[in-house]
Amino acid sequence: MTLTCLHPHYLIPVEPAGVVLQQHALVIEGSDIREIAPSDEVRLRYPDAEHVELSKHCIMPGMVNLHAHSAMSLLRGLADDLALMDWLNHHIWPAEKKHVSDQFVFDGTSFAIAEMLRGGTTTVNDMYFHHDAVARAGLASGMRTVVGCSILEFPTGYGNNADDYLEKALAAHQQFAGQEGVDFRLAPHAPYTVADTTFRKIIALAEQHGMGIHCHIHETQEEIQGSLEQHGKRPLERLHQLGLLSPNLIAAHMVHTTDDEIALLARQGVHIAHNPASNLKLASGFASLHAMQRQGVNVGIGTDGAASNNKLDLLGDLRLAAILAKAQSGDPTALHAHKALEMATLAGARALGLDSQIGSLLPGKRADLIAIDLDTIETQPMFDPASQIVYAAGREQVTHTWVNGRCLMRERVLTSLDSQQLLDTARWWQQKIVANIDAA
Amino acid sequence: MTLTCLHPHYLIPVEPAGVVLQQHALVIEGSDIREIAPSDEVRLRYPDAEHVELSKHCIMPGMVNLHAHSAMSLLRGLADDLALMDWLNHHIWPAEKKHVSDQFVFDGTSFAIAEMLRGGTTTVNDMYFHHDAVARAGLASGMRTVVGCSILEFPTGYGNNADDYLEKALAAHQQFAGQEGVDFRLAPHAPYTVADTTFRKIIALAEQHGMGIHCHIHETQEEIQGSLEQHGKRPLERLHQLGLLSPNLIAAHMVHTTDDEIALLARQGVHIAHNPASNLKLASGFASLHAMQRQGVNVGIGTDGAASNNKLDLLGDLRLAAILAKAQSGDPTALHAHKALEMATLAGARALGLDSQIGSLLPGKRADLIAIDLDTIETQPMFDPASQIVYAAGREQVTHTWVNGRCLMRERVLTSLDSQQLLDTARWWQQKIVANIDAA
Repeated sequence: MTLTCLHPHYLIPVEPAGVVLQQHALVIEGSDIREIAPSDEVRLRYPDAEHVELSKHCIMPGMVNLHAHSAMSLLRGLADDLALMDWLNHHIWPAEKKHVSDQFVFDGTSFAIAEMLRGGTTTVNDMYFHHDAVARAGLASGMRTVVGCSILEFPTGYGNNADDYLEKALAAHQQFAGQEGVDFRLAPHAPYTVADTTFRKIIALAEQHGMGIHCHIHETQEEIQGSLEQHGKRPLERLHQLGLLSPNLIAAHMVHTTDDEIALLARQGVHIAHNPASNLKLASGFASLHAMQRQGVNVGIGTDGAASNNKLDLLGDLRLAAILAKAQSGDPTALHAHKALEMATLAGARALGLDSQIGSLLPGKRADLIAIDLDTIETQPMFDPASQIVYAAGREQVTHTWVNGRCLMRERVLTSLDSQQLLDTARWWQQKIVANIDAA
Repeated sequence: MTLTCLHPHYLIPVEPAGVVLQQHALVIEGSDIREIAPSDEVRLRYPDAEHVELSKHCIMPGMVNLHAHSAMSLLRGLADDLALMDWLNHHIWPAEKKHVSDQFVFDGTSFAIAEMLRGGTTTVNDMYFHHDAVARAGLASGMRTVVGCSILEFPTGYGNNADDYLEKALAAHQQFAGQEGVDFRLAPHAPYTVADTTFRKIIALAEQHGMGIHCHIHETQEEIQGSLEQHGKRPLERLHQLGLLSPNLIAAHMVHTTDDEIALLARQGVHIAHNPASNLKLASGFASLHAMQRQGVNVGIGTDGAASNNKLDLLGDLRLAAILAKAQSGDPTALHAHKALEMATLAGARALGLDSQIGSLLPGKRADLIAIDLDTIETQPMFDPASQIVYAAGREQVTHTWVNGRCLMRERVLTSLDSQQLLDTARWWQQKIVANIDAA
């Protein structure tokens, strides 16, 4: 099997924590990381291998986008600067109702994956409809894709009721069973859109089929207020009583939390997908990231959909997460650069139960990794590569992206996707969507 | 005189507010904007002019960085994730004391200007030492540069005491008098480093020489606490009693404000340089941007220095300002995209008293403008160009930057600065700084 030896200037493996290697090479064999060893040794040992010189670059694990609605990239910028319910009721839901189809989801997910690969994301934990289309887009692109199968009580263009959504979720899971690089999660939409009976079914089916769960929880104060009125308790308490809170759960957002709730999340081993940009842009609030991390809650980072961010830019969002944590805690030492990198990589992998496969650069793990060019005006002089990546670099400095040993972006050029075709397709959808608005 | 006619896909003039033009061209004559007119007409009318096709681009005014310490770019990443006083006492001040010189400031300012031009900033309101070197760097690069001459009571490598700094400031102002593109401001460092007598002198000299004033105010709670202990009043009250608060003042940071203080700032016509990224990263806090704007305070946006941001990325920081304002006010309609663009352009120009010359694309104003390529995976589909620029675009999408009619970046290539030489110089300083740390 051909070996590919990467010779970067810096190598940040994330495990062990805080390490920056120099004069080291990373050897890819097939889909896996074979070893990390001194560059000179690797050159001597593998004279016939492919040697890739990355003398200006830092190599680190590919990033894990722990909460996304990828297909919504086709609605990016359709309706910004609006109140949440106005945004949903008058813009997003009507557009979704009219346009969302297998084709829309395949095209939109492919488009989003292109943006994510260009920005150094190698795994996406998605949540949307038309699961088959999401999975096909993931497989076609080579992106590691976790398909969150939305479940809610009310009908959409994709399903009629909770049982219908559940059935479709299990069918998709079955259909793609055993395929490398694609996985499925049950994704009850949120406490306010899913009934107790459905939550119970989801917990049982997740257990039965070995599936994880992904759910929006405590995104807004309104959600909590509504639950107090309807159920006489806060959503998290209700979900705890239903048995949802476990290491099998990724709770997206978790913006509003009491200290007791953070302790509960820690005790139950729930993983959090922190979405700082979306939480600010939709005015949802400020999640207590630093407090959660201090209490040992595992927190990864998500972009949310491009209709509410509007970037699928994990590098930018992890910077935002880090500087927000400092300001909220009043402590500039909070969430230092290496911890931020861990959050965007290993913590996300852990949340998905994939940390034995991805999230750090260790021999035997899958070769999901990226190269970032740090030899730019924006990231020099160089005192600390981790700091430059977190606080100074832009996603455009990511030059190479590998998933499962396959180079999906080389020198900024995507290899598995046709960028021009994606742009043409996005414009086709834009015209269709605009024509529909004009006709209304 | 040669005319240059730019034919962009979109044109956002900022004045009038909220307008997006299509099929319009902007005509540059010498240093000025001659006219904005339908593209077809312009082609017919000026067949011999230079016509620049920017069919994928949006043209907008160049951005005004309203608070920077440009030369500190050479210290970027030297000491992150530290508490403020640790950062200053043990890292930044010793490095400054050891290294800051005319050469350091010229090199560092040039390096920072390169980053700013690459990101669409055309005017910088700087604050540092070695004013002559800052001015020379500005003139050599073509960047519109306002040199803030730091004044404080204690000695540094540049001056012995307040009178010494003042003398140097006036000398520099005198030396460059009448040169287009460079201007000077008196910059009392902060209320806690400048005595009442010095503030009084500064106010008198500013009036006498027609100079503006630029000062850090209410950056941290500690500053306010210290003032209460030392002066028995908050810094703003003290400065008001001294007569500093006027339309001639740019107050940088202004993180901590009461409602009465915001009303006072509005009444006195003080301009604010809002520095959202630096305020978060140093854990200074959350400025009440939305409240200030609602009360009619003119707020522009600054990056602060690269040692505390660590990007000189106005486009990124205006996005941050916008989404922070939404979350802080609980109102997702706060600071909409066009308002954010105005903040980064015309509001900054107004603060500097330059709004008759720059800040919007109006005939007769100087041609300070930028082109942003929006035909990318990251900024399609296209429903709203203002939204795409503010919420989705990255600074790397800025392809052209003109200052005073001169194209300082063309297709991402700087024309007045040598990027490779700047990188080599930055590395030379890095080695010198590291060697000094290692020797200590």
